[in-house]
Amino acid sequence: MKLTIIGCYSATPRIVGQTTSQILESRGHVFLIDCGEGTQLELRRHKVKFNLIKHIFISHLHGDHYFGLIGLISTFRLLNRDADLHIYGPKGIKEIITIQLKKSNSWTNFNLYFHELENSCSELLFEDNRIEVFTIPLDHRIYTNGFLFKEKPFDRKLLINQIKANNIDKAYFRKLKQGSDVYNKEGKLIKNSSVTTIGRKSKSYAFCSDTAYNECILPLIKNVDVLYHESTFLELHKNLCIKTKHSTAKQAAIIAKKASALKLILGHYSSRYTDLQLFKSEASTIFENVLLARDGISFNF
Amino acid sequence: MKLTIIGCYSATPRIVGQTTSQILESRGHVFLIDCGEGTQLELRRHKVKFNLIKHIFISHLHGDHYFGLIGLISTFRLLNRDADLHIYGPKGIKEIITIQLKKSNSWTNFNLYFHELENSCSELLFEDNRIEVFTIPLDHRIYTNGFLFKEKPFDRKLLINQIKANNIDKAYFRKLKQGSDVYNKEGKLIKNSSVTTIGRKSKSYAFCSDTAYNECILPLIKNVDVLYHESTFLELHKNLCIKTKHSTAKQAAIIAKKASALKLILGHYSSRYTDLQLFKSEASTIFENVLLARDGISFNF
Repeated sequence: MKLTIIGCYSATPRIVGQTTSQILESRGHVFLIDCGEGTQLELRRHKVKFNLIKHIFISHLHGDHYFGLIGLISTFRLLNRDADLHIYGPKGIKEIITIQLKKSNSWTNFNLYFHELENSCSELLFEDNRIEVFTIPLDHRIYTNGFLFKEKPFDRKLLINQIKANNIDKAYFRKLKQGSDVYNKEGKLIKNSSVTTIGRKSKSYAFCSDTAYNECILPLIKNVDVLYHESTFLELHKNLCIKTKHSTAKQAAIIAKKASALKLILGHYSSRYTDLQLFKSEASTIFENVLLARDGISFNF
Repeated sequence: MKLTIIGCYSATPRIVGQTTSQILESRGHVFLIDCGEGTQLELRRHKVKFNLIKHIFISHLHGDHYFGLIGLISTFRLLNRDADLHIYGPKGIKEIITIQLKKSNSWTNFNLYFHELENSCSELLFEDNRIEVFTIPLDHRIYTNGFLFKEKPFDRKLLINQIKANNIDKAYFRKLKQGSDVYNKEGKLIKNSSVTTIGRKSKSYAFCSDTAYNECILPLIKNVDVLYHESTFLELHKNLCIKTKHSTAKQAAIIAKKASALKLILGHYSSRYTDLQLFKSEASTIFENVLLARDGISFNF
């Protein structure tokens, strides 16, 4: 998986500080998560191929997470996109986008599918043979979801020498990769484990923003490889967290620890802080493997 | 008047090429004309004081002219603006903005007034003792207005030496500035022209974008000091103008000439052209005083 932080600041775009948007690349998919104003320009800067984005996940309808969506859709249209586009987001997002298309007397020349969400339980949004995407219901001022991206098990790796030695026909390779035992050319049953080995480890990524401290999400994100958890504030401003339903860096770290996540990425910083290292320091007192999101950087995992 | 070009490209924002937005400063007013995506960031770059913007004029509901508006309004709210804000734009703009505020469960903490337009004749939008703003109905694919900003006559200048010699009381200075004859301390009628001289020349600015070539606007913009007229295309692509209801640089120049404008500023360029001088060359064959809009530059007139 490769995660590119397009923007990781809260509230309002600034000259240094884009609002939330991320690109997650996994097994051939290019997922866009949230889409603050100006996201399309940042995608151009990062040379993300627009046509590869087929699924956009919007956490909630605060502007810093979606004001760039209508512009991106319009640009797709102007660039004569033909690939289907799926948008997953809170109920209301369809009305917001379609009213703007309607008032400009235009429509998309590609298929635009809205998947409107209103469930307070986790649900499966997308699945193919490579990956599954689930919602993570969050606790914010308005209806909000995080998203869990779980790669499906990779194929087992073939041990070519053992396969040759066991005289197995090529026609069975697919079955072997999927873990089945097969018969060889002489009709003898060959145990899968004797001719294959474990494949690449599947990874998982959880995006949790915006949210108050919320232990309800723990079962959903248990053992996740990488957790992006918002940390709008430091403990110093915990009172603001309660009022605005955001989290501190320490709270994000507690969630990461309790979920046994392997890595924690912090983001969604309030612009009141100039030194982001303070977030890392605060979270590191609780959880060891803390990384800081910054606009434009990528994480490979 | 001072005109700052925030963005002057058509269709879609690019790394080099903001979509339409302008700031017009005139007699203490700071008017925002159109508001493409990312305008708030460009306003920050140009150090425009947000609180001074009290009137926003939106020409039409194509995204490259208004997608930045909701973000700007939201940012005003987050920055605790208290000044009133007036938005003038086509019918539908109120619904688009309010639905987005509603879905985010927020409202502005300042007075937000929508002045929705649907008239096909020119109308007076705003007037005070310093300036008047009129619509200029344009001919585009959807309902569109340009805007005419006309400074009211400046006060006449007092000739202090003559005033002293004529023994006029200070109480009459306001009347003198407004052009009235007054009585002096001895009760003698003093002709205004003998103790004042003509004041600063009032200026006018017409913004015309987006529009096909349209002579109907000529009476409205007759003798305007500065005309901004869109020139999306060159004559080379005149066929596209007809299809999309835009203008060529030559057509913009014909309008400027027929209106006896003093200066013409070209803009709203299609991104297909890399050399903007071609626009100036084409227009200059018809009209002498041609200037090119470029993102970030200002014109004083």
